[in-house]
Amino acid sequence: MAQLTGGDSSLLRRINSAVTLRALREGQVLTLTQLVGETGLSRPTVEGVIEGLIESGLVVEVDPAAAAVAAGTGKPGTESVRQRGRPARHFRFRAEAGHLLGVEIGTHGARAIISDLRGRTLGAYGRPIDETTEADERLALVRGTVAELLRRGAISRDTIWAVGVGTPGVVDSEGVVQLGTALPGWTGLDLANRLRRSFRCPVLVENDANLAAIGEHWKGAAVGRSDVVFVLAGLSPGAGSLIGGRLHRGFGGAAGEIGSLHVLGQEAEPSQLLSPSGKRLHDPLDEAAVARVLRLAQEGDHTAMDVRDRFLARLVRDVAALVLAIDPQIVVVGGWASGLAGVVEPLREQLSRLCLRPPEVQLSALGDAAIAIGAVKLALDHAETQLFSVEQ
Amino acid sequence: MAQLTGGDSSLLRRINSAVTLRALREGQVLTLTQLVGETGLSRPTVEGVIEGLIESGLVVEVDPAAAAVAAGTGKPGTESVRQRGRPARHFRFRAEAGHLLGVEIGTHGARAIISDLRGRTLGAYGRPIDETTEADERLALVRGTVAELLRRGAISRDTIWAVGVGTPGVVDSEGVVQLGTALPGWTGLDLANRLRRSFRCPVLVENDANLAAIGEHWKGAAVGRSDVVFVLAGLSPGAGSLIGGRLHRGFGGAAGEIGSLHVLGQEAEPSQLLSPSGKRLHDPLDEAAVARVLRLAQEGDHTAMDVRDRFLARLVRDVAALVLAIDPQIVVVGGWASGLAGVVEPLREQLSRLCLRPPEVQLSALGDAAIAIGAVKLALDHAETQLFSVEQ
Repeated sequence: MAQLTGGDSSLLRRINSAVTLRALREGQVLTLTQLVGETGLSRPTVEGVIEGLIESGLVVEVDPAAAAVAAGTGKPGTESVRQRGRPARHFRFRAEAGHLLGVEIGTHGARAIISDLRGRTLGAYGRPIDETTEADERLALVRGTVAELLRRGAISRDTIWAVGVGTPGVVDSEGVVQLGTALPGWTGLDLANRLRRSFRCPVLVENDANLAAIGEHWKGAAVGRSDVVFVLAGLSPGAGSLIGGRLHRGFGGAAGEIGSLHVLGQEAEPSQLLSPSGKRLHDPLDEAAVARVLRLAQEGDHTAMDVRDRFLARLVRDVAALVLAIDPQIVVVGGWASGLAGVVEPLREQLSRLCLRPPEVQLSALGDAAIAIGAVKLALDHAETQLFSVEQ
Repeated sequence: MAQLTGGDSSLLRRINSAVTLRALREGQVLTLTQLVGETGLSRPTVEGVIEGLIESGLVVEVDPAAAAVAAGTGKPGTESVRQRGRPARHFRFRAEAGHLLGVEIGTHGARAIISDLRGRTLGAYGRPIDETTEADERLALVRGTVAELLRRGAISRDTIWAVGVGTPGVVDSEGVVQLGTALPGWTGLDLANRLRRSFRCPVLVENDANLAAIGEHWKGAAVGRSDVVFVLAGLSPGAGSLIGGRLHRGFGGAAGEIGSLHVLGQEAEPSQLLSPSGKRLHDPLDEAAVARVLRLAQEGDHTAMDVRDRFLARLVRDVAALVLAIDPQIVVVGGWASGLAGVVEPLREQLSRLCLRPPEVQLSALGDAAIAIGAVKLALDHAETQLFSVEQ
């Protein structure tokens, strides 16, 4: 990117580069003539721009024969040969010229996904982390997770253009966790700065449910929908929403932090919801125990079914409050609760009873990867802003 | 407006007119020289544009002496006299060239407000309407309310440029009430078309709480705040919200329709909330009875205080759900419940307990007029779009 933002480039040249690059990125392999047609620039201008882009490593000239095979014509450059007496030059965007990294830092683990400059996933790696792990150790384990992912994919750290990070809690625009009760020592942590030391590129931090909403909108259950509510179901539920296709963070970055909704109805504490006895579980965040209860319920255990029903009642209430406030086109339910058999049907039923205009309800299509995929998209958007920006 | 959108005007001329008009509208009385400075247009261009605007009735030349007095200088055009040997011509925007009408159609009455083209209120008139009144009769009473307002202000119907209308329920972008249970015969009513017959100008219909949010943002408790939730407290509460200064209508226009939230906690029916005995009031929508109960509570009646507290608990729950979902900068509470003594303090207290980032909480500054004032703003925005638009 440095080549495109250098102080010696004129604004016009930068605009021409951005236009040419965009055409190549969307149009696969193109000839000079095709680029002239796509961009509306003159042939000499495109030639000059292309030379610069090749130097910067973002574009490469390809063998016309290979390009024709790739395009499925089987007739390599014949037309241009006829017209000009020499083969047309073919170019493609080098999506492999850089990488984007998406990281989820969760209560029970870390997960990292690496993509190319088109956002195609190249690899993923995750590891469990004990929920009691303190911040310093947790960050070390996150760095280890990223290192292992890069090692397995033989990807150099220096090729990463931007890093997106998802975490529970309220995150401000500087990447500081303003409030994060789900992870020990998390509140007040300058997460962006702490992680920036490990990379030579921008590190962007966002709330986990917000990233899951972005992820599902990009590649999951909410593709093509502009008004989306994503509910990260769990013992401490969170939500992220897109309004008009854009993330709605709220005035203080706390939109969708619905964890305290349950207090309003004087129902059981969240930790009690999944205790068969109705008492606090020994470990309120023991999601393995939760999964066990859900499995028992599916197998017909009546106590477990009762617990599951109480959980479902709370989920419905949380989602209904969001839907009534925001009126989205679609609600996507994710998080571990999405493993709950038949959660979608009763949710649909209840919402159509409660809402004036019930939204579509879908299970997450990305599952456990939703947050990390949203983090990749956050990084990709940042990289594209720089790539296609024409302002200094 | 017809003069500005005529087919014979060139785009450039229209742009120049819009620019000049905007300068005059914001800058009070201006001279030609000042207009040249404000607009960046040439003197002959401004002269031509001004002649057109005077012909259309939107601008008038004023007496320099009067203008100087109005501007508080006391030295009428001396500088220009020195420079050019003749007095400078002064012009002002004719805010009185047209009017905007805001109408609230409520369960218990109608209210209309008329303003000039700057949005200054020129008059208001309201009358009670029985809640059982059917749609046809209700519309006749609304027309009568408007007629009486115009009669009192000696304002001709033909000078109205746009009409904004607020009503309970879900209203679609065409002005059809998709769902409106608070008023008899309201669901399915093509309200915009029914009212359009009475006017020779655009009629725009919007949900009442949405308009109250716009009204408070324009002239009330939320001036200068871009993220606003307005709660129309009452037996069937509604809410409107602005996100980034713009109305958030929701995907289906139902955002903020939180009337069914109470069902989620299995609390009493809304009609029961304000019955001292806990039983249904004879008339669930008898707001006079509600006001009586609130007054008794203020006077120390223990049964009434208990009823008020249950009402408050519901209000807190409704508002908290909205705040957690949207994370606004400010919550404005209006509707008749705003008459409830001390509603704001307990609401603030509860919200700071429940919300990660508690918002500012204020009582409506516009009171009963909030919806009609928002309706005027809706009409004003429409008129300005046409006035300052440069596209056909």
